[in-house]
Amino acid sequence: MPRLFSYDHFAGGSESVRAFANKHSPVIICDTETQRNKPFNVKVRIGKTVKHPNSPEHHYQYIQLWNLETLIATIKLERASFGDLPIHIEANFTFVPKVSLRLRALAYCNKHGLWQSEEVFVKVIGEEGEELH
Amino acid sequence: MPRLFSYDHFAGGSESVRAFANKHSPVIICDTETQRNKPFNVKVRIGKTVKHPNSPEHHYQYIQLWNLETLIATIKLERASFGDLPIHIEANFTFVPKVSLRLRALAYCNKHGLWQSEEVFVKVIGEEGEELH
Amino acid sequence: MPRLFSYDHFAGGSESVRAFANKHSPVIICDTETQRNKPFNVKVRIGKTVKHPNSPEHHYQYIQLWNLETLIATIKLERASFGDLPIHIEANFTFVPKVSLRLRALAYCNKHGLWQSEEVFVKVIGEEGEELH
Amino acid sequence: MPRLFSYDHFAGGSESVRAFANKHSPVIICDTETQRNKPFNVKVRIGKTVKHPNSPEHHYQYIQLWNLETLIATIKLERASFGDLPIHIEANFTFVPKVSLRLRALAYCNKHGLWQSEEVFVKVIGEEGEELH
Repeated sequence: MPRLFSYDHFAGGSESVRAFANKHSPVIICDTETQRNKPFNVKVRIGKTVKHPNSPEHHYQYIQLWNLETLIATIKLERASFGDLPIHIEANFTFVPKVSLRLRALAYCNKHGLWQSEEVFVKVIGEEGEELH
Repeated sequence: MPRLFSYDHFAGGSESVRAFANKHSPVIICDTETQRNKPFNVKVRIGKTVKHPNSPEHHYQYIQLWNLETLIATIKLERASFGDLPIHIEANFTFVPKVSLRLRALAYCNKHGLWQSEEVFVKVIGEEGEELH
Repeated sequence: MPRLFSYDHFAGGSESVRAFANKHSPVIICDTETQRNKPFNVKVRIGKTVKHPNSPEHHYQYIQLWNLETLIATIKLERASFGDLPIHIEANFTFVPKVSLRLRALAYCNKHGLWQSEEVFVKVIGEEGEELH
Repeated sequence: MPRLFSYDHFAGGSESVRAFANKHSPVIICDTETQRNKPFNVKVRIGKTVKHPNSPEHHYQYIQLWNLETLIATIKLERASFGDLPIHIEANFTFVPKVSLRLRALAYCNKHGLWQSEEVFVKVIGEEGEELH
């Protein structure tokens, strides 16, 4: 399979290795609880604290948001939409959850491959089947 | 070329024709002025006032945001992320403008083709070349 | 709408203008007749006779194949998959037609926008409803 | 991470489990050797020997071709382009390799997630650095 990188793989590395992993890591930012069948917003930012380049030769191409094995949406970035300087690219996903979520973001850098965020759990109040418990 | 539909084409039609066009029309919602080199948010909503179906047989597949002939980004929607009821799907685009914008949203319905929004002008304060005036 | 360029817009221009349009124009290459419900192949080549650059700053990003207002498929090109020299990029679409086709290819250059091919008609033998005639 | 399924995970299962995995597995079909800087064709077929449904509720959405951690291209399938019956969907990738390839196909089913093919090695004659050996 294509290797799926994450910050954890590099957390024990040198400062420069950690900076490399830091700037490539997608970070999920959202509420930890929401209502069923209401629009829910999830922001994905590239880079924990270090900005990633956005040059023609080196930039992020797309970001996906997944709920376990289910794809929620894909945002295809056009490089020129984000200027020429290093940047924390942010992408916003809006969708309508039915059940509690275990979210992961995947993001593809044209030089350094596919990176995943940490998993984020979101409790969905009123989810299907909840009345049974 | 693939036909590019817009509400205007149908505005003189019967009530049901206008409802058809209404629910298919992407609408751009954003500030009319922003700063250069700052992230700028543009919301695109499908449907002026009428909700569009979101069934397996009939749903929106993707939304693009364009600045004149330049593509800003593409959001690929997964149908199941938006429930099974008619809905105003909303997609959020975040990007970093350098120059003033003439925005159009394009959105593709799997049954009724490619629809465009009205054009929206956004003044970008401090845009390149502005110091010359 | 985003401007939709085609070779015809530039055919009356100078030699350099025509070369510009030539290298940006998608060309559809396929049989003019096929069988219903059989896989059918359509090749789209970028550039009539002049090769288009494939540099980080200037390259084609995606190619779509349309049958009138219906999207058949989208091929997202990764620039680095095609080397660094000017090239006739080729993309192959395989699908299963039910009815006769009026095909157009659309292709997006990151510098010069969205270009369409000429329309190509493909007769589909045994298409739905044909038995009525 | 989103789970990445492959036939091997299910090879020890019952006949119905193996049929489930069989029909979801992407298969790479290509030459095992090619020339550097020449267009190279890779066919990806969904399903080893069992056809996958292509209904509005259950179908394949996209196919990607990867060389290790590098994405070669993404083909976004429109369901209606492939009829309503179970089918071996085929997608054709054409690209220009510089170095020997370790290919994987990834394909996303809207009901059963992301599936990968077996890895296929392709020797690229005249690859960069080969003159050194």
